[in-house]
Amino acid sequence: MSTDRDAVRETACRARTAAVDLASRSRADKDAALHAMASGLEAAAPTIIAANAGDVERARDGGTSEAIIDRLRLDEKRVHAMADGLRDVAALTDPVGEVVRGYTLPNGLELRQVRVPFGVVGIIYEARPNVTADAAGLCLKSGNAVLLRGSSSARGSNEAIVAALRNALVSKGFPADSVQLVPGDSHESVKHLMRARGLVDVLIPRGGATLIRSVVEESTVPVIETGVGNCHVYVDSAADLDMAIDILLNAKTQRPSVCNAAETFLVHADIADTFVPRALAALAGAGVTVHGDERIRSYGKDHVVPATPEDWGTEYLSLDIAGAVVDSLDDACRHIRTHGSGHTDAIVTGSQQAARRFVQAVDSAAVVVNASTRFTDGGEFGFGAEIGISTQKLHARGPMGLPELTSTKYVVVGEGQIRA
Amino acid sequence: MSTDRDAVRETACRARTAAVDLASRSRADKDAALHAMASGLEAAAPTIIAANAGDVERARDGGTSEAIIDRLRLDEKRVHAMADGLRDVAALTDPVGEVVRGYTLPNGLELRQVRVPFGVVGIIYEARPNVTADAAGLCLKSGNAVLLRGSSSARGSNEAIVAALRNALVSKGFPADSVQLVPGDSHESVKHLMRARGLVDVLIPRGGATLIRSVVEESTVPVIETGVGNCHVYVDSAADLDMAIDILLNAKTQRPSVCNAAETFLVHADIADTFVPRALAALAGAGVTVHGDERIRSYGKDHVVPATPEDWGTEYLSLDIAGAVVDSLDDACRHIRTHGSGHTDAIVTGSQQAARRFVQAVDSAAVVVNASTRFTDGGEFGFGAEIGISTQKLHARGPMGLPELTSTKYVVVGEGQIRA
Repeated sequence: MSTDRDAVRETACRARTAAVDLASRSRADKDAALHAMASGLEAAAPTIIAANAGDVERARDGGTSEAIIDRLRLDEKRVHAMADGLRDVAALTDPVGEVVRGYTLPNGLELRQVRVPFGVVGIIYEARPNVTADAAGLCLKSGNAVLLRGSSSARGSNEAIVAALRNALVSKGFPADSVQLVPGDSHESVKHLMRARGLVDVLIPRGGATLIRSVVEESTVPVIETGVGNCHVYVDSAADLDMAIDILLNAKTQRPSVCNAAETFLVHADIADTFVPRALAALAGAGVTVHGDERIRSYGKDHVVPATPEDWGTEYLSLDIAGAVVDSLDDACRHIRTHGSGHTDAIVTGSQQAARRFVQAVDSAAVVVNASTRFTDGGEFGFGAEIGISTQKLHARGPMGLPELTSTKYVVVGEGQIRA
Repeated sequence: MSTDRDAVRETACRARTAAVDLASRSRADKDAALHAMASGLEAAAPTIIAANAGDVERARDGGTSEAIIDRLRLDEKRVHAMADGLRDVAALTDPVGEVVRGYTLPNGLELRQVRVPFGVVGIIYEARPNVTADAAGLCLKSGNAVLLRGSSSARGSNEAIVAALRNALVSKGFPADSVQLVPGDSHESVKHLMRARGLVDVLIPRGGATLIRSVVEESTVPVIETGVGNCHVYVDSAADLDMAIDILLNAKTQRPSVCNAAETFLVHADIADTFVPRALAALAGAGVTVHGDERIRSYGKDHVVPATPEDWGTEYLSLDIAGAVVDSLDDACRHIRTHGSGHTDAIVTGSQQAARRFVQAVDSAAVVVNASTRFTDGGEFGFGAEIGISTQKLHARGPMGLPELTSTKYVVVGEGQIRA
């Protein structure tokens, strides 16, 4: 165990050394490295796919579900998609060096707040091996060294991917240790990573609620919490009901397994008689089971089951949705504040006043008026790439792009000023 | 103990309710409340000073040092200074509602990133009761409810101050629970505060290194680490030596007890023969003891003692300074990276190239060229007020003003957009 700890801390120390080098690299150098990483992945595709086949076989032998195995599997096309992802990151603006604010103080001191890399970023993630390349690319572009801790089920794939990326980095004169896997397969090695305060600047867990909760609770390294989404669609009394049906169906069914899919709909009592029967029919037609409160259930039985108290807080990630009738916009906001996860919540309304009050009262990373919850995404928001969606309030909230992978420092330039 | 826990959590729940109200208050309302709080403190000055006399007596009976007692003591003048501090905060721009960025997406969605309050902010601090009013004012202006946990030695003073502030808030139609003391005097109650994740949005410890370390390590609530400063002054081979003497003396002696005072000076070998004897004479003249490495010690003995390895990492907060001769700018940067606390580090140089390299290589909250380290301060930086100086990289780095007491949310406005 203490060997594990030493191994993790040595890896983190090597990352810190690499980070000092990375912080001063020009955008041109970093982009050249990203292109080399992309080509390197493509050249290593046969090795990566062979290693992945081993992971898939082990997972299948271990009785892993086909859904998880599909996430784990890599083929030629997916390797090319990873490479193209790295090329997309090369095309993005470099956040490092951006002057966030700046002015001259009364005493003549020139003050600038400038974006700088964090230093060492740790990413803890689950089955998808494509995260390995994505995270490495985003961290490199933002000048950070990265410590990757994927799931042990993808160990072979991740090792092959990281080997290709490190070779490419070295070919462009970058330190290989800019990108490293955390050594060790046990939960202990994750713990040592979470305790490496001072060596690791920030940890970003990506995955299910259990993983994220355990990192948040155990880590002494600062954490950016990501991803759990219990998203709501509230249909106001002043809603365009056709629009509301379209948004509700899209938010629930366009891709049910993701964090910005809707998990609860709330309907204002004044329009329930008209809207709820149409909504139930449309949801049933799309194969969605509604977990309805008593008032929802009074409008229909097809694909409707009674909601339990747990339903209001459940992230189904499936063709299920909770539903309730509320007496007012304020009740809707209260429901969302009580049961929501602070990810994305939407109102459908034609009333400017209702929209304004909802935006004010709902305290979530994204508050949406008259559109689907599914737009909360770095790509959709125009950030070009995304390392995750933060549901915490510190540092970053909502989709995190390259600027969210940086800190700042103040640069103060004088000509001998001293304090009186 | 579980009663303690319940009491702390109930306090936090009341703060959350107050926070929902506070988030929607206009700047005009908040400024009126701040002025009422200022007048309320002045009106309650006799009560506050009487309560404080009790705290001072207990502290003296307990054998507390006169230096600490001086920090604890309140008089008419200090109460007026607290009130004026609140009026200064009223004069500052309201950060809530600021649009940090915004544009229209290709699909017509209007995207805005808007500043919003955190919600509930916890402040854990030591002897000075003026922090009680300062923190309450800054949190109110930024739309946050605040939970204050001062030291038990200042309990009576803090209770009297908070009572006056709450009365003033109520008189302006604000919830009294916008400002609360954390119940309980034991370390257990601090622990419960640190474990109130989900109820408290952020904790800011203000005080000595031990307090800050314990909060950072034990808290599951996100923490902004503040204040420990092992600040360096590096005198480059291209320095103006008169300027270097002035800056070194100012950084060390203008107010030795604060976090932005210098604790180590480094001198380039090329100018050591000229500079070090002058520096030693000037420091000795100001009553400073130099903890010098062998090369520093070769230039003089008056007020010079040998540096131990611990000296390089020590925040003296007194008329002591560590000193070393280095062979290059790179060695100076390495020394600072190894031993510094990432607070404020300064270079004195006439070389543009050296300044640029130092600014690049030193990863601290503030990097200063040709000025005293003492300028790292919210007031000096033009922020108008300061809740502390962050030495972490997440969320806020350097002096924290009102914007650093906020988070953001994305507001997305459409006309029925769904995702394809």
